[in-house]
Amino acid sequence: MKKDELELVKYIRNKFPFTEGIGIGDDSAVLLFRKSALLTTDLMIEDVHFDLSYTSFYHLGFKIVSVNVSDIYAMGGDFKGFLFSLGVPVTTNEEDIDSLFDGIEDALNYYGGYLIGGDLSRSEKVILSGVAVGETERPILRKGATAGDRIFITSYLGLSQAGYYVLKSLNQEDRAKVKSTKYFDLNEKIISYGKSEINEALQRHLMPFARKSDKFRDIAKAMMDISDGLLIDLYRLCEESKVGAEIYVDQIPVHPAVKEIAKLFNMDPLKLILSGGEDYELIVISDKIYATEVGLIPIGKIVEGEGIYLVDPSKGKIPTKPEGWQHF
Amino acid sequence: MKKDELELVKYIRNKFPFTEGIGIGDDSAVLLFRKSALLTTDLMIEDVHFDLSYTSFYHLGFKIVSVNVSDIYAMGGDFKGFLFSLGVPVTTNEEDIDSLFDGIEDALNYYGGYLIGGDLSRSEKVILSGVAVGETERPILRKGATAGDRIFITSYLGLSQAGYYVLKSLNQEDRAKVKSTKYFDLNEKIISYGKSEINEALQRHLMPFARKSDKFRDIAKAMMDISDGLLIDLYRLCEESKVGAEIYVDQIPVHPAVKEIAKLFNMDPLKLILSGGEDYELIVISDKIYATEVGLIPIGKIVEGEGIYLVDPSKGKIPTKPEGWQHF
Repeated sequence: MKKDELELVKYIRNKFPFTEGIGIGDDSAVLLFRKSALLTTDLMIEDVHFDLSYTSFYHLGFKIVSVNVSDIYAMGGDFKGFLFSLGVPVTTNEEDIDSLFDGIEDALNYYGGYLIGGDLSRSEKVILSGVAVGETERPILRKGATAGDRIFITSYLGLSQAGYYVLKSLNQEDRAKVKSTKYFDLNEKIISYGKSEINEALQRHLMPFARKSDKFRDIAKAMMDISDGLLIDLYRLCEESKVGAEIYVDQIPVHPAVKEIAKLFNMDPLKLILSGGEDYELIVISDKIYATEVGLIPIGKIVEGEGIYLVDPSKGKIPTKPEGWQHF
Repeated sequence: MKKDELELVKYIRNKFPFTEGIGIGDDSAVLLFRKSALLTTDLMIEDVHFDLSYTSFYHLGFKIVSVNVSDIYAMGGDFKGFLFSLGVPVTTNEEDIDSLFDGIEDALNYYGGYLIGGDLSRSEKVILSGVAVGETERPILRKGATAGDRIFITSYLGLSQAGYYVLKSLNQEDRAKVKSTKYFDLNEKIISYGKSEINEALQRHLMPFARKSDKFRDIAKAMMDISDGLLIDLYRLCEESKVGAEIYVDQIPVHPAVKEIAKLFNMDPLKLILSGGEDYELIVISDKIYATEVGLIPIGKIVEGEGIYLVDPSKGKIPTKPEGWQHF
């Protein structure tokens, strides 16, 4: 790195001006909340959460914002600000650092929030720690679902996990191609195998977008984002709400990229959809029948009792175990 | 580790109840601010910020809270809540994890705040990322000092750095003794060399206490905490305030432990005091003559122009370069 720490702080401060309070450059950020404040934090660690052989620093910057903003939207909140801590090896290229902050900048512009603080450190592995700050009139919790409510999701699931399987299988040449690609155009074949539609899965894994909830938060009784997998996250929501759930398997939409990738890897696409994490779509619980008109996709209903059941027209009602990402 | 991730989250949630809002267990924490909100974040990484051969998990837990709370106090704020993200190897002992959260608990009780969120991940090295949340009627910035103001500090400096030199010089047996000690009693000889008064330096390095500012924040025009070293931090404050400073070297108090350790290592105690970081005392700028009555120690004055000068009765006025901890 050419910049020393003081210079890097100056660079970041100039890149991210904040005029609605005190941002970078003092001991703490200062801001005013007019409604309830929302705070959330998420960590991303090299070789645990990402692989630098196919992940660009630009994507990392974008993703650390998305995964945090997702938790603000999951509470029905509006995003306001972001704090970002970075650990990087001293040998990191200046261009990589610039790309990282370009990714953060693009994400903040996309979501409409400001960088207001953070910390810098050297580190053996790349470490990103984000904090998203938001506000809301009415926080929507995991608690609040009652028997009879409908379960909705906001879009296709399993894409990120499917993309992950593809990325892990790539040879060095393909990894380099992926790493140098910013947006994965559907009409362009980037890697050496499969149809170009799998690009969408690569994009979702490397640079996910958090799902805004402002269009439907008013009709949500309970909500959460799908970061670890539909089943495990729905299980957590049900636990908080002290209810059970039934999922109608044949109602869950399957994205063409998930179908294609499941075929390539000889997997069950349903497994990717139910247990693949990192899609950053939302689970929305509502009793409003018109929820589909604001784009929500019905996939099941809340029932009394506990546990999640898959309802399959051909196989009947099958109990599930919560499956998805666990760190320990 | 015996607990899996779900069990660990449950354990943490039970240990840290929060009733004034929504704490651990939802997508975001929810809380209400009545005044301006303060937000700050600090990262601690194994082998960069701490050495596990002499640092206990209890001390780590206490310290990650202190270093973050220090930034809230440095803004003149009251501490409210804490978010904590942890990366640890899967092989970490259950007892170490428990000690870590005991340290966090003791610190939160000491400072009077709640654990309201966080994230968990496996990781090769131990990584701690803290976020402190506070509030204040009137934030005190680094900007605001004007020529003629007095420069105060809140207590002895250089202790943490002096302690660091001792710790780094210890043999394995002494490191193990230090690691198993919670509070370093001044009357007990713990390590095999030096006077027992150096215990205070070990304590300050391993388990610093953030300096509360409620007694003097009303008379402060500018303020910041000393985390990287007096000179570099005062330099930053002066840069923000667009002023210079003069330090009266003979007015700076020297702690007996700093004197003793400087002698042991054949160092200039003044260098430890001026450039040693991690003391988490405060620099307070005030034009009030009675500032000493609330415990503040005068060490210099703000002048026009730029740069920091050391004023030594025997040597005259010596310009300084900002020195202290830089990561890159």
